[in-house]
Parts: sequence; structure tokens; C-alpha cells
Amino acid sequence: MRVLLPAGTTETALIDGISAAGAAPELMEHTPSADVEILAYGEPTASPVTPVSPNGCPTPAAVTRAVREVVGFDVAVIDAGLTQSTAAPTVDLGVRPGNDIRDPIAVPDADAAFDRAYDYGASLPDETLVIGETVPGGTTTALGVLTALGEPSGVSSSLPENPIERKRRVVDEALAASDLEAGDCAQSPLEAIEAVGDPVQPTVAGIAAGALEAGTDVTLGGGTQMVAVAAALRHAGVDGQLSIATTSFVADEQGDRLAEACDRFDCDLTVTDPGFDGRDHVAMARYCAGEAKEGVAMGGALSLVPDGWMGSVRDRLEEVCARLGIESDAADGPSAESDPGDAPEGGRGR
Amino acid sequence: MRVLLPAGTTETALIDGISAAGAAPELMEHTPSADVEILAYGEPTASPVTPVSPNGCPTPAAVTRAVREVVGFDVAVIDAGLTQSTAAPTVDLGVRPGNDIRDPIAVPDADAAFDRAYDYGASLPDETLVIGETVPGGTTTALGVLTALGEPSGVSSSLPENPIERKRRVVDEALAASDLEAGDCAQSPLEAIEAVGDPVQPTVAGIAAGALEAGTDVTLGGGTQMVAVAAALRHAGVDGQLSIATTSFVADEQGDRLAEACDRFDCDLTVTDPGFDGRDHVAMARYCAGEAKEGVAMGGALSLVPDGWMGSVRDRLEEVCARLGIESDAADGPSAESDPGDAPEGGRGR
Repeated sequence: MRVLLPAGTTETALIDGISAAGAAPELMEHTPSADVEILAYGEPTASPVTPVSPNGCPTPAAVTRAVREVVGFDVAVIDAGLTQSTAAPTVDLGVRPGNDIRDPIAVPDADAAFDRAYDYGASLPDETLVIGETVPGGTTTALGVLTALGEPSGVSSSLPENPIERKRRVVDEALAASDLEAGDCAQSPLEAIEAVGDPVQPTVAGIAAGALEAGTDVTLGGGTQMVAVAAALRHAGVDGQLSIATTSFVADEQGDRLAEACDRFDCDLTVTDPGFDGRDHVAMARYCAGEAKEGVAMGGALSLVPDGWMGSVRDRLEEVCARLGIESDAADGPSAESDPGDAPEGGRGR
Repeated sequence: MRVLLPAGTTETALIDGISAAGAAPELMEHTPSADVEILAYGEPTASPVTPVSPNGCPTPAAVTRAVREVVGFDVAVIDAGLTQSTAAPTVDLGVRPGNDIRDPIAVPDADAAFDRAYDYGASLPDETLVIGETVPGGTTTALGVLTALGEPSGVSSSLPENPIERKRRVVDEALAASDLEAGDCAQSPLEAIEAVGDPVQPTVAGIAAGALEAGTDVTLGGGTQMVAVAAALRHAGVDGQLSIATTSFVADEQGDRLAEACDRFDCDLTVTDPGFDGRDHVAMARYCAGEAKEGVAMGGALSLVPDGWMGSVRDRLEEVCARLGIESDAADGPSAESDPGDAPEGGRGR
């Protein structure tokens, strides 16, 4: 069993109003680089950013890391278009950062990224893979791909109030810039990604397709972004068994739409509730309030927690948060003593 | 606790007669890339080479992987000048492959590599680091650095018959090409490495120096190559507590010289005997015959095995060997049925 984490960036994240409020755009491109350092080392090491929202909500990388410290799974991070360097070990598949989807071409190397990711996925000896993602702006690009494929297009958000109408307008503009209408890319998912997607999507889809071909069990660890990947795989004619594992926070926001989408794309769905509502800790309170919700393979990692161990994960999350400069006594909001210089807000654009 | 593995190449490995006999030079540069795939995934995945000697002796990566599968330590591979791509996750410190030490400059970016490695080592939150290496030709470059520093210069070999005189002639030629004599680089170890070393040396030394400065416990996992790194650190004025952990195979070959060198450079020495002599398996028999001996953090990994667990490591090594195409029934030599096309010999140049 191994958790794979394709990590990348798209300039789409810089569009005003779709990414996490309060985050400085120039710091956001550091978020996935910091996320993978947290996953690898337990805290950012070289990254100048600690992705914590203004309200004290840490990146889902903190949760995934807490699970890892309890459960002990192997990780491989794949560079799926990082803009900023990271001190975490990464697999280099030659994937480039993505453009703003309102440009004519969003992912110039979508085909090549898929092919190289396919070979990588097919080469791995693991019996089971959980594939996650970290890409700020990723729910907007997911909406783009679903729309281009002509699929029902609800997507989640890292914000308690989902700016879904804003995202729809961005996607409409993006399709127009690529001379496309909704549904024009049905059965041609790589064209959809090239036009209005992000570089993490062909990387996740390629690894999944290659691994399925090799007989590996594949779980997509994520929410609506993984629904978009599943849609892309089905439109590409990949018919292997797929599972999606996400968090109760995404499921609560999406309601019946999530199960319907999984049904539509023939995916098993696992939803895990980490039980954060029982703790008086700012990080867990923010998740319960609808912030962040998912990302960095959080739902996939939570699905690996054996029965009875979730309390240990919550305990460990408090330790991880302490390393990230988030203390539980800030449960009513950001601590007055906290120094933003110690933990600049990277924000998340999910 | 984390095992770090700087992996790189030097054209020095291509010099006739110093590297593992029988290995095709054009395949040798794949060896470190394959080694780190074995460490990360349990077998080569993208690499076209499985480093197994003509006699059926697997790369030490197989042993380190077996220990990892039993003990479960974290790993980070550092690209310290890989020539060939690898599917293993690697930390990119911008280190370039090394030149033949008989060129005037062997490691053009030795200073920069050391500085970046220092920052990386200082940034890691681990309390304990074990730092290994994989670089074909590395014992010759170790001899080069020790000689340039004016230090007693015995080095080990991956061959049962150590071609030490051949190495000394190469080093003499290398020093002359750099307009140096033995001892000319005393107190200037980066000059020694630049002239007659390899790119893995400043990477290991830099990480160690940075980690020591940050208060981390550092063990150099290796044999005489790590003696050269320890010498470089002491000549650089680094006076922190250093340990070397190597295998009984190196210790047996080196006799008193190893302990004397560790004493000279104020290093604790741990020697671990994996008990391979009790098994009727070709891989273990070849180690007992003096092949390979050490590398890919083998001695460091073995030092992590708790009392009473070494039998499990040997059991696991048999499984790892089976994945690499080495079966125990080949104990009298390479199996007649083995297909060299399935497992091209990468060879080792230690």
C-alpha cells in the first residue's frame, strides 16, 4: 500500500475570488510545495509558507501527516507541475505548471503528462495505491473538465461559502477562450484537460490508468476533484474498478450529488468522518465549520485508519498543529499573540 | 529517525579495472538510479538495470530494502548528481554528475553542493539521521580525497580482490592533473573534493554539517567512503559528534585500519554482522566471499535492526532477492536458466 501525491500548480488559482480568502496570491503557489514537505517531514522545512488560513485552519496536509504518523504508510510525491521548489523528495515526470484556464491552452503537455504518468503507475509493484492531489485552484479546474465533458458539474470548495457561481463564470470564460462549449470534449478527456484543466489531473488519471492496467487496486483520495478525474478516466474508456475516498466534510457539503456522481462514474465511495466535532481545538473546529474540507489525500488517508484508532489521529493532529504554530487555545479565532511572520498564510484554492 | 541517501555518479567509475568486474560501463551509470528505486519500491521500476553481479551478488540496496521492510524507517533520497533518471522520489539540490578525477576539475560545483546540502540538513526536524551513499567509483574518489588531505589512505572495494594499487595510480594521475600533491588540500576539503572527489561527498558532508549544527544526531552509514567524508568534515573544522556504522564485511577487509581511522577522525564506530554465513543463499554467500561489502546505507540500516530481528532481515532479503531475479538455488554460481536480459548487470564500483 502506498499513498501517491501528485502536486502541482495552475495560474487559475490566482483568479480573484475563487481561492481561499485572505491568502496572498504570491504565497499560494508555495502551498503545494509546503504541503508535500509537511507530508514528508512533518512540517515545512525549506518552504517559506505554512498553509494555515487566517482563521487557524491548517492545510489538509496536516491531517494526512497525522494519519501517517499513526498508521505508517509509504508515500511518493509526484511533481505534477510545482512552481516553487520543495525540499520533499519528488518523482520527476517532467510535468509543467498549468496556465490560467481562461488562456486558450491550460495544460500544454496534458497528453505527455498522462503517458508518462501511465508508465509510472504501471511500473509500481504495490498491490494497492491511494492517489491524492494538492493543487490550489483545483476545484475550479475540476468544474472546467466536468463541464467540457458535459457532465453534471457540482464541485466543492475550501471555503465555507462555496463561490460556485464565480467558478461557473470563470469556466464559461475559459471554455469560450478555448472555442469550446459545454460537452464538446465528451469522450476526449485529455482535450478537456488541455483546454480547461490543470496538470495534476492528467497525472492522477495517468497513474490510475496505468496502475489499473497492471492489476493494482486504485483509490482516488479526494472529493470533487477526484470525481473529475474519475469522469476523465471513464470518458477515456478506462473501465477498471475505481474507488473514491473522501471526507465527511465534502460529503456533507455535496449531499446526494457526491454519491450520484460516483454512481454515474461507477466508483465505490468511502466517506470517513474523523470525529473532529468532539474536540475543542481550533483546527478541528475550522474543519467542522466547513473550511478546507479535503485535499492532500486527506480522505484517502483517513480511510486507512483502523477502527478505534481515530482518537490517536486526533491526538496526533494536535501535535502536528503545534509544530505548524497552531495552538488549541486559539479556538475562538486566531491568537492575538500569533506572529503572522512565523506562519504566513499560504491559503488553499480548493 | 530518517535514512538519507545521496545518490550520484562520477565518470571515474568508467575507468577500466577499478569498478565491479564484468559490468558493462554503459549500464553502470544506471546503478544508483536503480538502487534508489529498490530502496523506494522494493525493486527497479523504471530503471533498465538490476544491479546484480555476474556471480549473483545483489546491490547492497537489496539489504537496505530488506531492513526497511522489517524495521520500517523513513527514507529521503537526494539527487547528488544522478546521470540517469529514476522513478524514485528524490530531493533536488541541483547537484551535477562528477567528472573523471583525472580531469583537472572533478566536481565543479563542490562548494555550492555543500552549501545547499548544509541548508537541507539544517532544515530537517528529525532527531537522528543516518546518511548513506550510492555512487559507483566511490572508493576511488574516497582515496582521492583522503590522499589530497594527506590522510592515511586505505579504502575498501566491492571486489573480493581490492584493486588498491590500480586505484592509487588513478589517484596519483588525478592529483597531477589538478596540479596537486598528496596533502596539498589539508584543511581545505572542498578543494580536495573539487579536484579529486565525487559529487556525493560534498552532499553527504554538507547534510551532516548542517544537521550537526542544528543539534541532530548524525550517523554516516557506510565504510571507507564515509571515512573520507568524516575526514573532510574534520578538515573543515566541523567538530560535532560523528558516528560511522558499517558492515562486518568492510571491517573484516580493513582490519585495524578502520578503527584507527575512526579514532583519528573522532568517530564512534558501529560494525554490524548480518549473519549471512548461516544461510545457503547465493546472495548471502557472495557477501561472505567479500563481494559488494557495503553501500546504499547498508551498514547504517543494519545498525538499526533490534536484537533478535536479524533472522527476519535475512528472511526478507531472500524475498527481495527473488523479486530481483536471484534465487537461492543458484548458490553455486549464476543459474544456467537465468536470462541476463531480465536482469542486466549494473555492477558496482565501490
